[in-house]
Amino acid sequence: MVRYKAIIAYDGTNFSGFQSQINGRTVQDELEKTLSKIANQKIKINGSGRTDAGVHALGQVIDFAWPVKRPLEKLRFALDTQTSADIAVKQIELVEDSFHSRYLAKEKTYEFRVDIGKARSPFRRFYSSYYRYELDLGRIRRALPDFLGSHDFTSFCSIKSEVNNKKRTIYEAKMEVNDTGDELLFTFRGDGFLYNMVRIMVGTLLKIGNGRISEDAIPQIIAACDRSLAGPTAHPEGLYLKEVKYE
Amino acid sequence: MVRYKAIIAYDGTNFSGFQSQINGRTVQDELEKTLSKIANQKIKINGSGRTDAGVHALGQVIDFAWPVKRPLEKLRFALDTQTSADIAVKQIELVEDSFHSRYLAKEKTYEFRVDIGKARSPFRRFYSSYYRYELDLGRIRRALPDFLGSHDFTSFCSIKSEVNNKKRTIYEAKMEVNDTGDELLFTFRGDGFLYNMVRIMVGTLLKIGNGRISEDAIPQIIAACDRSLAGPTAHPEGLYLKEVKYE
Repeated sequence: MVRYKAIIAYDGTNFSGFQSQINGRTVQDELEKTLSKIANQKIKINGSGRTDAGVHALGQVIDFAWPVKRPLEKLRFALDTQTSADIAVKQIELVEDSFHSRYLAKEKTYEFRVDIGKARSPFRRFYSSYYRYELDLGRIRRALPDFLGSHDFTSFCSIKSEVNNKKRTIYEAKMEVNDTGDELLFTFRGDGFLYNMVRIMVGTLLKIGNGRISEDAIPQIIAACDRSLAGPTAHPEGLYLKEVKYE
Repeated sequence: MVRYKAIIAYDGTNFSGFQSQINGRTVQDELEKTLSKIANQKIKINGSGRTDAGVHALGQVIDFAWPVKRPLEKLRFALDTQTSADIAVKQIELVEDSFHSRYLAKEKTYEFRVDIGKARSPFRRFYSSYYRYELDLGRIRRALPDFLGSHDFTSFCSIKSEVNNKKRTIYEAKMEVNDTGDELLFTFRGDGFLYNMVRIMVGTLLKIGNGRISEDAIPQIIAACDRSLAGPTAHPEGLYLKEVKYE
């Protein structure tokens, strides 16, 4: 047996998330079904982490054991073309048997897109979260650096999470505006993210931009370890898992 | 009665084209249904031209007579929010009664997107035409200027067209490559375009890029007035009606 690592992209619109579940179409099921067909035996995959229904990936990482070495590009092409059109297999490489895409992930980058056009773009309705209210982008820019560093992010984690250690380190937190001024692109890079963390961070930042949370409130919200003090969970369609890094 | 002109965008994926037809969901039907509901009487629209099933619009222009003057932003908002999410109403203005979005159009701009990534992007599957073969972009760049100027474009028009005068003038024909090098963006600006013209131009340019048509062949193909000499009709999902200009 050998082990392969693959970088995949998917449009999360028509998936009930990444991870296998009893009901609903998932990315994991789709990949395992295709891999098992190609290998002619049952193949299971690991992913770097789950993504929720409607959430997209530009660079999700998976790994799987495979019966025998194959030319990389042939395997990539077979997997890419035999999975449905909403999954792309961008890259594939041979890794050590000890590789594990979830346990060994050192850094993740997420993007979050917000459509702020006067009329919601038909082309972004599944790919950007629409925000229809007034926004002072200066307030958001001033608040963003308060997420940097190591903190207990309990306030920015779904209460449904069962993780015990909620300390995470954020290396980068930035916002860009597109050329036409009608879409925001947030980027968050850190050693890991809690359940719904990016979506709650964005929901809080939008509320800060709209003036309903003070622009210097983030340190207090973090310190309180109380989910109810942060903003709402932004919609899944704006969220993209962009990159996962390993040692 | 007053007359309004509106600029609309739509995602053509789930439409059987712009123009009303007996079967299938169309942009015109969707707009007329919503306008008639708001006005509480039957409203008919003119469009600057048809778009085929799957073809998108960033700046289609329509016009319609309306019983009584209304605040522009209120009308825009009502129309934008009451049409389905794949249509956006970007702008609305009062025009003279004599305005007609098709007859008075002076210039149109189309974009055509081609996904040339090694793995087809899941996010572009309805928004960019995928081309999986080798492309020499230099060949395409050198061929593009041959479309400029006034020509009889019979060779670049569907044989189903019933238009008699096939002379059109192209003011601009260019190709850009995106930052990541995996998508081409063609732009064509002219006084008008024949049925399938942009799609046949792109289909021909891709065949030139792939080496199966000579890079200096366009003048001869134009001169022959023979559709069979041009390349295939590129797929509809890459095509966008970007802008329509009036005097």
